[in-house]
Amino acid sequence: MTKPIIALYQDLKDKHKQAIATLMSDYQVKDMSDISEAERADIEILLGWNHDWTAADFEEMTVLKWLQNSSAGMDALPDEVKQSSRILLSNMSGIHGDSIAQNVFAYILSNYRGMYQALADQSEHHWNQTYMDDLKQVNDKVILLFGTGSLSQKIAKIAQVFGMKVIGVNTDGREVEHYDQTVATEDADTVIGEAEIIVNTMPSTSQTRGLFNQSFFEKMNPEAIFINVGRGDAVIEEDIATALNEEVIAGAYLDVFQEEPLPEESPLWEAKHLIITPHTSGVVEHFRDAVFSVFYKNLEQYATDGTLAMNQFNAKKDY
Amino acid sequence: MTKPIIALYQDLKDKHKQAIATLMSDYQVKDMSDISEAERADIEILLGWNHDWTAADFEEMTVLKWLQNSSAGMDALPDEVKQSSRILLSNMSGIHGDSIAQNVFAYILSNYRGMYQALADQSEHHWNQTYMDDLKQVNDKVILLFGTGSLSQKIAKIAQVFGMKVIGVNTDGREVEHYDQTVATEDADTVIGEAEIIVNTMPSTSQTRGLFNQSFFEKMNPEAIFINVGRGDAVIEEDIATALNEEVIAGAYLDVFQEEPLPEESPLWEAKHLIITPHTSGVVEHFRDAVFSVFYKNLEQYATDGTLAMNQFNAKKDY
Repeated sequence: MTKPIIALYQDLKDKHKQAIATLMSDYQVKDMSDISEAERADIEILLGWNHDWTAADFEEMTVLKWLQNSSAGMDALPDEVKQSSRILLSNMSGIHGDSIAQNVFAYILSNYRGMYQALADQSEHHWNQTYMDDLKQVNDKVILLFGTGSLSQKIAKIAQVFGMKVIGVNTDGREVEHYDQTVATEDADTVIGEAEIIVNTMPSTSQTRGLFNQSFFEKMNPEAIFINVGRGDAVIEEDIATALNEEVIAGAYLDVFQEEPLPEESPLWEAKHLIITPHTSGVVEHFRDAVFSVFYKNLEQYATDGTLAMNQFNAKKDY
Repeated sequence: MTKPIIALYQDLKDKHKQAIATLMSDYQVKDMSDISEAERADIEILLGWNHDWTAADFEEMTVLKWLQNSSAGMDALPDEVKQSSRILLSNMSGIHGDSIAQNVFAYILSNYRGMYQALADQSEHHWNQTYMDDLKQVNDKVILLFGTGSLSQKIAKIAQVFGMKVIGVNTDGREVEHYDQTVATEDADTVIGEAEIIVNTMPSTSQTRGLFNQSFFEKMNPEAIFINVGRGDAVIEEDIATALNEEVIAGAYLDVFQEEPLPEESPLWEAKHLIITPHTSGVVEHFRDAVFSVFYKNLEQYATDGTLAMNQFNAKKDY
């Protein structure tokens, strides 16, 4: 009888593959590129997937029991796969957290300490101290994080060490470690105006799409800054461009966009006080090690009882 | 009999002055600008001083018992005042620590996360992800801090939260909280090559002047970056410009310089991979509050027994 296949669409190091083969000796461990059309029917476990695949492609994998995604977001996955009661789903939520949190603080600190102005002055050999009275420290400032998941918690923990007051927004306002205060989504309006820094860390759901629009920016403190490291579709880009240009808010940092690459004609390229990174905040230095670490933990659990140890995706909750 | 004077060269808020007057009811509290030449002989306590004053100016203050400096560095003070056994000296060490640490991390994180490249690309409307493989996280990186005083400790504490390994260099290698390891100055060579980030936080002393020179940079890891937020005279500027341009080291951030403003002809303006801020890292958002806080604590102690509670300057140690 043919051994079932652990198919690696996501590339791993050789030592990772050997560790998997040792743990799962009743399985074949194969790179996806080495798997024939016919062999797809033997794939039981899949690490990563081709975003061009449709529901029909997954239907060929008749014994697929577990798909381990190699990124945090599951929104591109065909609905038929998401809804399948046969296929366990898990994502890579968490492995990008350190990177993204470091981008977030690179921006916040550079903004507060006048370092974007200093860069502009340096390019003109200009020793300019005229903005010294505008410099701020982050100590005692209020940071409002939409979402209280693993990424948000990384940001919250660092923010507290910098002496900031951390408020988190989640569905029901439940308490979470590293937040001085949490509020439910329906009560977010009560804290928006108080925040000096607002960060979206949420995945894309029907509740988050378009949440950060003109009406939202008008509720913000005009001195406050906005950061999106969640999903591009959370922000109405025309609205934030206007809010920045008309100084409804004081600055913004966007790493994710409705359409990527950001189109040449986007008003964001020329918006005032905006910092853009090209969806690089989540790039992980030792990516394959990080992916393997999550996959292997789940694999150990799966080998034991057919369940997953971490990062199981709940299609009903959409995250 | 004339009441002795508490002279404020450093401006304070009215509420601060009232608090001082209430605490020290046997003294006059006067702004320096309201003090006549003759009245200088009645100054017992002085907050801040004019850097144009010479030893002769201080000699006129015949009953001066305590000079509270309004900045961290004491090097500009005339030697006669530093050596005087009559005058207690104290500085503002510590109040700039949060600000400087925030500049340091603005630079480190922006460097590691490719945000200077992203800024350059943004100005050209260029969605460029070609440098993604060069992005790094600070986790597990080695940061080597020259000096383990209050500023260095602020940096060390944040570095540990970011998951970095923190090594401190001080005179005798004594252990200090927030450092994974400390080494004595004479053993610094044993750890320079290991460090991915090196930060000078030291005051200016005969041991620190010119310490960061060609020979030092050649001992560094070519992938490492260097930061000076201590004193400008610690770095040989021609040497660091060469080290950057010839890629002996990978990058640098300098906030302080041998001559300020940085002269138009300085090679630093055009050095590769260098970030310059115009001695703004220590600028404190609520400066007068911070100065008052230190001064008042010392004042309470002085009123009790004529000694100081904090930040006393030791001329023999030169810091």
